[in-house]
Amino acid sequence: MVSMVADEKAQPQLLSKKAACNSHGQDSSYFLGWEEYEKNPYDPVSNPGGIIQMGLAENQLSFDLLESWLEANPDALGLRRGGASVFRELALFQDYHGMPAFKNALARFMSEQRGYRVAFDPSNIVLTAGATSANEALMFCLADHGDAFLIPTPYYPGFDRDLKWRTGAEIVPVHCTSANGFRLTRAALDDAFRRAQKRRLRVKGVLITNPSNPLGTTSPRADLEMLLDFVAAKGIHLVSDEIYSGTAFAAPGFVSVLEVLAARGASNAPDADLSERVHIVYSLSKDLGLPGFRVGAIYSSNAGVVSAATKMSSFGLVSSQTQHLLASLLGDREFTRKYIAENTRRIKERRDQLVEGLRGIGIECLESNAGLFCWVRMGSLMTSQSFEGEMELWKKVVFEVGLNISPGSSCHCREPGWFRVCFANMSAKTLDVALQRLADFAEANGSGKGGAAPARRPLAGGPARTMSCPVGRFSWANRLTPGSADRKAER
Amino acid sequence: MVSMVADEKAQPQLLSKKAACNSHGQDSSYFLGWEEYEKNPYDPVSNPGGIIQMGLAENQLSFDLLESWLEANPDALGLRRGGASVFRELALFQDYHGMPAFKNALARFMSEQRGYRVAFDPSNIVLTAGATSANEALMFCLADHGDAFLIPTPYYPGFDRDLKWRTGAEIVPVHCTSANGFRLTRAALDDAFRRAQKRRLRVKGVLITNPSNPLGTTSPRADLEMLLDFVAAKGIHLVSDEIYSGTAFAAPGFVSVLEVLAARGASNAPDADLSERVHIVYSLSKDLGLPGFRVGAIYSSNAGVVSAATKMSSFGLVSSQTQHLLASLLGDREFTRKYIAENTRRIKERRDQLVEGLRGIGIECLESNAGLFCWVRMGSLMTSQSFEGEMELWKKVVFEVGLNISPGSSCHCREPGWFRVCFANMSAKTLDVALQRLADFAEANGSGKGGAAPARRPLAGGPARTMSCPVGRFSWANRLTPGSADRKAER
Repeated sequence: MVSMVADEKAQPQLLSKKAACNSHGQDSSYFLGWEEYEKNPYDPVSNPGGIIQMGLAENQLSFDLLESWLEANPDALGLRRGGASVFRELALFQDYHGMPAFKNALARFMSEQRGYRVAFDPSNIVLTAGATSANEALMFCLADHGDAFLIPTPYYPGFDRDLKWRTGAEIVPVHCTSANGFRLTRAALDDAFRRAQKRRLRVKGVLITNPSNPLGTTSPRADLEMLLDFVAAKGIHLVSDEIYSGTAFAAPGFVSVLEVLAARGASNAPDADLSERVHIVYSLSKDLGLPGFRVGAIYSSNAGVVSAATKMSSFGLVSSQTQHLLASLLGDREFTRKYIAENTRRIKERRDQLVEGLRGIGIECLESNAGLFCWVRMGSLMTSQSFEGEMELWKKVVFEVGLNISPGSSCHCREPGWFRVCFANMSAKTLDVALQRLADFAEANGSGKGGAAPARRPLAGGPARTMSCPVGRFSWANRLTPGSADRKAER
Repeated sequence: MVSMVADEKAQPQLLSKKAACNSHGQDSSYFLGWEEYEKNPYDPVSNPGGIIQMGLAENQLSFDLLESWLEANPDALGLRRGGASVFRELALFQDYHGMPAFKNALARFMSEQRGYRVAFDPSNIVLTAGATSANEALMFCLADHGDAFLIPTPYYPGFDRDLKWRTGAEIVPVHCTSANGFRLTRAALDDAFRRAQKRRLRVKGVLITNPSNPLGTTSPRADLEMLLDFVAAKGIHLVSDEIYSGTAFAAPGFVSVLEVLAARGASNAPDADLSERVHIVYSLSKDLGLPGFRVGAIYSSNAGVVSAATKMSSFGLVSSQTQHLLASLLGDREFTRKYIAENTRRIKERRDQLVEGLRGIGIECLESNAGLFCWVRMGSLMTSQSFEGEMELWKKVVFEVGLNISPGSSCHCREPGWFRVCFANMSAKTLDVALQRLADFAEANGSGKGGAAPARRPLAGGPARTMSCPVGRFSWANRLTPGSADRKAER
């Protein structure tokens, strides 16, 4: 690109390494799948043969509740307070610390999502333009170039970009398997820690999603205890991304690591400063279904992290217009109480529809109690139990069945045959269409309920078939190209 | 901070270097000034003896025009289009490429700000949560750790944080002086380039603000030609931060570097790929006075930059609610035409009030034709022509006179005695109060119009008194602490 006749100091490389390397993924087969979806999106009336989007963890189930509230509270959208315009105040508002009314309401709402078992101090909240930004800012605060975070697999593929790209931090996967329902173990953590040491990486922390994306499960209290023991012993950080906390719809329910931390107290010496090393990421994109409004948050009791992250938030502040709206909405306790109850009821209903539908076809899901997706075992539909087989099935499901789902390899899952299937971004009728299509496909491939394939294999049974994943570099994040597909900040 | 009894791998340093080093500035004397302002803000009725904020480049002059438009266009705030709700569409909207209607309207508005002499292709626009984010993203795209950008002085102090902190890029100042009204020269650029080479930094580009913050002047066409010759010859980038383009109120008016570039054509060999190395930063914070809404943009004809910056924009997207509002507002050509004319008329009027008032006291300003501030020479009020003298005067002005203004040393100005004084964030009456206070102070110090001090010294006369600045580390950006002051993303 550089001009060959430029005098003196012609620069051999015009763009940064970060920018120059970012074409990865354009050759991914996922790209083809998303492109296919965007070329041919399902619509019950205008395009009943189109592809149904089941790769997008959107919550569209409770918009009517939000719309009714907006209708009844015109000041929220109208940039008014008590009927009087606050336009000028909002137009000029750019305090890095966020709008007090909004932070107070958000702190209270986060507490409510956790059954009021944890109290949040608004002054420990740093607002960010979405959880994507919150996660990256935390990495900038906690890790230097070449430092590592341990992350249990399968994990949200966007982390490969969000946590690593601009920070220079590394991710070391903690391998979880179906043998115990993908639960985190101390042995797996120790193994990852050792692998990091072998690579001469300094481990600065562990990052989990709780509830898990893509598993759709909440972390059991015992696992969080074990995890806290681990980070306490190692003297490292724990980041708990809890952006799906408000989607937990069934027992044992969602337990935040902050609850477990509070219950431990600081009596153990290794725990003395543990509370300064536990950080939460939250967002309104999933629980309220508002990804377009770009509202995320970091919660930390570490003054250094809050101070640095607050300064970093200047690179992604939340619009004051949006803060004003949400301060009103979340400040309405009567509304949030009803919303949370009804929203989780609807999520459970839609998830039950998916799980029962799949079971009818002979396809099992990991038992879930949260999230906007299920973690589905489709090995019975694969011609070979390998990542090649997974990719082959995935292509069939996208191109022949007409469902855009996400293969486990994109989540760094070590066992082939798992897929993340989203259910909350469509109507019950559309979900029925999707299930019928899959039933027809299973039937035609002899793997339906009456077929010969090993359906209903118990999830935790038998040895886990783990292998290194040849398609690990494919990810949802990699879909982000200037092309027609590849446009979403979706999680 | 790390627990002393932690087993195995206790980490000696818990936070990243970036986070750990960010306490700088808390001991700055500026902090005291802002704290003083926040403790004691002027109000004509409730606190007529308070400090008047003249350190904040806000545009409060045309809010009535925006309010009238909002009143007449309820769909914009109401999340409606043609009366029908688009709430669901906006709630879910998270396309990195931004809302087409908004980008089209923004491209047209940017073109209008430049007298329609430049056409903007909406597909070359990357939306960001404010110009702060746009500038940082561009650095991430163009510079690796240790690469340098040349920036003419005096420059916006926030650049020290925005461009360097997380990217690892370096800033090498291009020293401009009052001898030629702080205009950029080839000699100054060559000097900076040589200094960068001596420091073994790879120069990746030049960054200018046009109109200049803090000078309040537009770049003459000839200077932009010279600058393009320089970057063409060196094979480096040019970033032109044009966030004040809509504030140009007097001849010769604002000329975008894109106009000059288009006129050159690509006939010269060094120019062959020059258009791919010129990038614009824009924002609606100054021209529309909407910093709270966090709307910035990168404009580039470099496909690699657009692609990488679009991905990076996931760390700071613009709220869909705000995009919807502004798509309507900027899409109303009749409104924008009237707004631009009236807004610049009002800026000129207020600036004239400041300049004439200061002249009456014997204080001269650099002749300006843009911006929301003047660059004011106050050497006549200083007891010594040094940065110590500047700091001494600055403290008097804050604590005794009751005006919070910004000393030139914070902008890396090499000549002591210059101050940035903002005028568009207050009423005409408040500006009169500020001027009267300064007149009283000058009178009392024998430096008023009738005093003995060398008032009305011609701006460009005599040799420039340059010296290294002992307070260069003080900056507005450094005010950002968790304390009571220190909260603004202001420019």
